[in-house]
Amino acid sequence: MAKRLELVAHWLKEKDIGFCMITSSPNLFYLSGFYTEPHERVVALFIFQEEEPFLVCPNMEVPEARNAGWSQEIIGFSDTDDPWELIAKALNKRNLSKDNIAIEKDHLLVSRYEKLVFMFPDSHFISAEEKINMLRMVKDEAEISVLRQAAELADYGVEIGLQALAEGKSELDVLGTIEFELKKKGIRQMSFDTMVLTGPKTASPHGKPGKNKIQRGDLVLFDLGVVLDGYCSDITRTVAFGNVSEEQRAVYETVLKAQKAAIDVCKPGIIVGSIDQTARNIISQSGYGEYFTHRIGHGLGIDVHEFPSMNASNSMLLERGMAFTIEPGIYVPNVGGVRIEDDLVVTDTGVEILTKYPKELQTVK
Amino acid sequence: MAKRLELVAHWLKEKDIGFCMITSSPNLFYLSGFYTEPHERVVALFIFQEEEPFLVCPNMEVPEARNAGWSQEIIGFSDTDDPWELIAKALNKRNLSKDNIAIEKDHLLVSRYEKLVFMFPDSHFISAEEKINMLRMVKDEAEISVLRQAAELADYGVEIGLQALAEGKSELDVLGTIEFELKKKGIRQMSFDTMVLTGPKTASPHGKPGKNKIQRGDLVLFDLGVVLDGYCSDITRTVAFGNVSEEQRAVYETVLKAQKAAIDVCKPGIIVGSIDQTARNIISQSGYGEYFTHRIGHGLGIDVHEFPSMNASNSMLLERGMAFTIEPGIYVPNVGGVRIEDDLVVTDTGVEILTKYPKELQTVK
Repeated sequence: MAKRLELVAHWLKEKDIGFCMITSSPNLFYLSGFYTEPHERVVALFIFQEEEPFLVCPNMEVPEARNAGWSQEIIGFSDTDDPWELIAKALNKRNLSKDNIAIEKDHLLVSRYEKLVFMFPDSHFISAEEKINMLRMVKDEAEISVLRQAAELADYGVEIGLQALAEGKSELDVLGTIEFELKKKGIRQMSFDTMVLTGPKTASPHGKPGKNKIQRGDLVLFDLGVVLDGYCSDITRTVAFGNVSEEQRAVYETVLKAQKAAIDVCKPGIIVGSIDQTARNIISQSGYGEYFTHRIGHGLGIDVHEFPSMNASNSMLLERGMAFTIEPGIYVPNVGGVRIEDDLVVTDTGVEILTKYPKELQTVK
Repeated sequence: MAKRLELVAHWLKEKDIGFCMITSSPNLFYLSGFYTEPHERVVALFIFQEEEPFLVCPNMEVPEARNAGWSQEIIGFSDTDDPWELIAKALNKRNLSKDNIAIEKDHLLVSRYEKLVFMFPDSHFISAEEKINMLRMVKDEAEISVLRQAAELADYGVEIGLQALAEGKSELDVLGTIEFELKKKGIRQMSFDTMVLTGPKTASPHGKPGKNKIQRGDLVLFDLGVVLDGYCSDITRTVAFGNVSEEQRAVYETVLKAQKAAIDVCKPGIIVGSIDQTARNIISQSGYGEYFTHRIGHGLGIDVHEFPSMNASNSMLLERGMAFTIEPGIYVPNVGGVRIEDDLVVTDTGVEILTKYPKELQTVK
């Protein structure tokens, strides 16, 4: 954390920003090691150019912040205190320039922003995300190690899902079994709503699992991930339940070819957008271009969607330590949908594929 | 929905507000019938004094909005459109006063607010929540009927939890069984992270379930709820696993007495704060006052926490149709914690208790 805080302090100096206020749970966790979901209560981390940072949180969370390893100043408050008053007092004690203040514009609510504007009416507010998103994008060894374990549990989730497939069971039955078995492994939270879709519903990238029963001849799509020690995994596999049609097989093979080709081009120095383009070209050449309706993937870390966005127009260069998904999909109405998704991290010479569940089309009898 | 939109339009007229922009999923659902989790994409409902409201959403969500019953104008946009440009165009077509604009200040992000301020630099921005929170607080018959069914499923969740208790099982094992069985009933989403806490962990109102095993002589606390058709339930029961101590029993009986007394005072016209005070007096007289560390309850509806806040200083009057929880708790370090929570709705003469799981101390052998 010390290193990360130092990088933020350095950025503040470079940009002549008096201080930075961090309020989102993921960024707070990234910079302090303390994960909390404060809901309507205020939790904020203040970072300065030179002075020591401090944390503001409800009194009852102070022990948890300490347990999480935060050893610097904490300003605790009770339910009858006004935390903004305490914040103003603490900031005014410090001899700071308030010309520029960095806040999380993609997280801070207008009601809280108005309190800051009231406190510092002449300040110019700058987005802190522009820096912190970039810091978070490149993972260190400790982060990669957690991502690796989270991916392993995602593999396990898919395995459980496949074993649970049976005629007469519903999507929600299978989904329930997956989450039940993951809870037994100590997983408290999935990284997003688990998806088990069957038959025509696989053709909707945003479909919701329901009580409809799995039928022979269906494609079944699993999309799931776990949160482990604050980091997310995200895997998609599509399998055949009984015999599927020739066209469904053709769609599957096209997605698989595109997914492998996209992974193959990943290495430090290539343009992020070219990864999407590689997969898209293959899918278009097979005649399914119009059915690949989303970007190839997304960055992965504390948030299940973070930087870099793996879209065709991203001109950023791939860098060692970046973690992301590669997940092309083809969704043909009345035929079905196939998506294959892995989690990757960039190494010195290519990528490490974190999710390892087999990708060849599996037929569940 | 038509009635609700009319009430908002009436408020706009009364307050001389040109239009209202709704962007939060719960309020959007309340006012349009369309529930969506747009994440980083823009979804917004615009309501006017006189003119027809319109909805803005990604093209791919237009069919879902129609399915949900939204028959008025929809402005769809693709991933390459700038939705704010479309919004500006649609608003400028209408001959509106832009002196006052209502937004959800407790939901809207600074980055989006800045787009509005850029579009309407001379406007005064007003909180839409102050009106919509009040509208949502009083439920109609259709809403109460859904809350009733959601509460029934919460009862069922507790029943499953009790049946699943066994030596050697962990908190997460039991939690997993509860959610698994609820998924089989078609429940896709819990209304918050299910809590199963045992032994010393019951003494923390914010404890997190873990892999620790349930032991004879433990209190076990269940706090859970489901989301059904967009509405939440929320129940807490505490039970004894094997024989518990005299003091644990005494704590239990105090909480139960306070909970029943608080429910007994509920009827239209009483001051909300007096409900908390009734329970708090009983707990204080028993010597446990310092261990009842939170408010008596919270409003319940589309959000699991909404208006009215059932705290001791709320001077609002109880009204027919208000729905909320009553959940006193006593948390004694090294002894354990007890909380008993029901969901209620105010009737003409008192309350209907929606959660019906028995409240006398149950001992699981």
